[in-house]
Amino acid sequence: MLIRDARIVTGDGSPAYRGSLRVEGERIAELGPSLTPQPGESVLEAGGRVLLPGFVDAHTHALFAGDRLDELELRRQGKSYLEILAAGGGILSTVRAVRQSSERELADRLRERLYWMLEQGTTSMEIKSGYGLSTRDELKMLRAIQRAAEGFPGTVVATALLGHAIDPAVPGFVEQVVSETLPAVHAEFPGLCVDAFCEQNAFSLADCRRLFERARELGHPLRLHADQFTSLGGLELARELGARSVDHLEASSREALQALAHSETYGVLLPVTGFHTDGRYADARCFQDAGGKLVLASNCNPGSAPSSSMPFVIALALRKLGLTVLEAIRACTQSAARLLGFSDRGLLAPGMRADLLLLQHRDERLLGYELGGNPVQSVIVAGATVFHRRELGEALAARDSTG
Amino acid sequence: MLIRDARIVTGDGSPAYRGSLRVEGERIAELGPSLTPQPGESVLEAGGRVLLPGFVDAHTHALFAGDRLDELELRRQGKSYLEILAAGGGILSTVRAVRQSSERELADRLRERLYWMLEQGTTSMEIKSGYGLSTRDELKMLRAIQRAAEGFPGTVVATALLGHAIDPAVPGFVEQVVSETLPAVHAEFPGLCVDAFCEQNAFSLADCRRLFERARELGHPLRLHADQFTSLGGLELARELGARSVDHLEASSREALQALAHSETYGVLLPVTGFHTDGRYADARCFQDAGGKLVLASNCNPGSAPSSSMPFVIALALRKLGLTVLEAIRACTQSAARLLGFSDRGLLAPGMRADLLLLQHRDERLLGYELGGNPVQSVIVAGATVFHRRELGEALAARDSTG
Repeated sequence: MLIRDARIVTGDGSPAYRGSLRVEGERIAELGPSLTPQPGESVLEAGGRVLLPGFVDAHTHALFAGDRLDELELRRQGKSYLEILAAGGGILSTVRAVRQSSERELADRLRERLYWMLEQGTTSMEIKSGYGLSTRDELKMLRAIQRAAEGFPGTVVATALLGHAIDPAVPGFVEQVVSETLPAVHAEFPGLCVDAFCEQNAFSLADCRRLFERARELGHPLRLHADQFTSLGGLELARELGARSVDHLEASSREALQALAHSETYGVLLPVTGFHTDGRYADARCFQDAGGKLVLASNCNPGSAPSSSMPFVIALALRKLGLTVLEAIRACTQSAARLLGFSDRGLLAPGMRADLLLLQHRDERLLGYELGGNPVQSVIVAGATVFHRRELGEALAARDSTG
Repeated sequence: MLIRDARIVTGDGSPAYRGSLRVEGERIAELGPSLTPQPGESVLEAGGRVLLPGFVDAHTHALFAGDRLDELELRRQGKSYLEILAAGGGILSTVRAVRQSSERELADRLRERLYWMLEQGTTSMEIKSGYGLSTRDELKMLRAIQRAAEGFPGTVVATALLGHAIDPAVPGFVEQVVSETLPAVHAEFPGLCVDAFCEQNAFSLADCRRLFERARELGHPLRLHADQFTSLGGLELARELGARSVDHLEASSREALQALAHSETYGVLLPVTGFHTDGRYADARCFQDAGGKLVLASNCNPGSAPSSSMPFVIALALRKLGLTVLEAIRACTQSAARLLGFSDRGLLAPGMRADLLLLQHRDERLLGYELGGNPVQSVIVAGATVFHRRELGEALAARDSTG
């Protein structure tokens, strides 16, 4: 297949240019300013529309049960996220709903969300456990992620978020996680990233260190939610232990961000949460300018980030994080792919997997400018078109002309 | 057609309930908790999804030429909207592009946007002129609106925004608008609403009074952009002259909002602009609680509100204006329809025009909770389905099973 006359945004931050891209099988074969169709090759006329790599959403809690819509009214009345959490709402209400759901119910719910993400251009996505808070329920979540991914065209990466919250009903909860849940997860899912939330009322710095040192011994890469509300030292712990990423960073100092930027650890920014909770945004400019490995992700979850729209994430990145559109696109394509361990995607280059998006827009800046709606026209996964939206006017005209 | 087993949100602010709705021809025939199909009647199974009136977007500048993407970088560097305007950017750059476009080019551009709005659930929309700033170019815009609406399934309402900005190259510009442009518009488009922007560097209070008194004599209803940045007395002028609406109100005092609430004039709130310009939001709660006729609209325009997504408007209304979802929905269905002079839509009731939306959501609160993307599953205009999105997973499964 030849995608002709597109505005090509490669995903590595380099400027866009007008050109064509050839897909052969599941891979990108070549791209350049002027390619001509080979005999028998199908041609997709892009008409100047933007072509870019499929989005890689590297931080989501998109598997959950129940909803947190009651919190909307509490928040409207002025209650804060931490107040709602302290009153037994927040994460713990989702934990109750997840525990009451079967693996199959969880998988069905997630599958619906996965297709919704795909239609919005996300072709690879990370999904965390973390609403189980027991060995049985964490394993159930991880199995549900596996089950939902069967037959789904995109790529799903599971993360074992074993340190998401403390179950107040279980004395010695952290001990249980380290000595029972972690080994059980290790036995069934070796090599998954292990993740934790270092925050007041969640895992303390000492809890995180305990979990992470054991997980590292078992060969699990580490990721950490740190500095969302309070800077407890999680960022420094993550650097010390060589974690793959530190995520959130809203409360990080400039010095901490600069130190992180000089390490191999990715910084994952989640601006939807700043927006939805009326909270802070991370100092993205500082981290970017210091040469940090910056990733943008949706943080999709029912409490603090009700969105899986990467275009909305990019729109916030331009307005609230001070990033340019090319920096923002790189952060959720090439950089996000590398964080998840993929060297075969997130970039338009020969030999890369053909996970591609064609937008309705003819200028990539509109991806971050226009607010709301779905700007994705076509989604191609491993060389196969899985979603194509016909222009509504064109579709209606065709219907009218056929009677 | 019977739409069965929907979650019905009528649009008048009353609570949602589970029920069915019958469409006969272009109208709603009946609705209630349990209707059974008549012989030969087609049935749309809603499966508990939310059914509501098509959105009425009562304030847009969706007809424009060029783009304002360069301002994105200026704003990223910290320049304010008023600074960009004062430097010859802003509205005047759009005016230059509109003047260089033909009526046909403008109509083609608008038609693309109209279908995009329709797909997002907006079945009736107001479109303003105002980027012409000359008799010839204002007439060109109004004709382009008329032309774009031909054959379009939704309903387009034009407004003559004759007082949008001052052309600095024309001495006595306001005099020209009143003595030349207004009579020319009146001759070709009698009865259109006449609109103005009462603001520093735009139309002064005295300019607005002059234009409006003459327009009123000619029988044109009035609308006014007032109190966006500066409270110059426009709100009071609009009340005094019995304007249909005052739009913006970000800088209005509580006393002014309460006085407006006790008048027949609608207050139109445009939260996308507060968000996009990092500016203020109107005190919606004060106006609503005082019994004001509150309307929400997109303000879709290339400079201060790059969005025509009513779901995004509702999402902002919940977070930034303190409205409940039912208040927000009413504000862009029933109340917006009435502002535009329609008594036949914006409400699910027998005899009303069947402009309907079926969402993918099963709880109307998700309409304001979920951020980004397009939650609209089906759009029905005057009883005919003009847009129906098949679930992507379902569509792919069907494709796979047919080979």
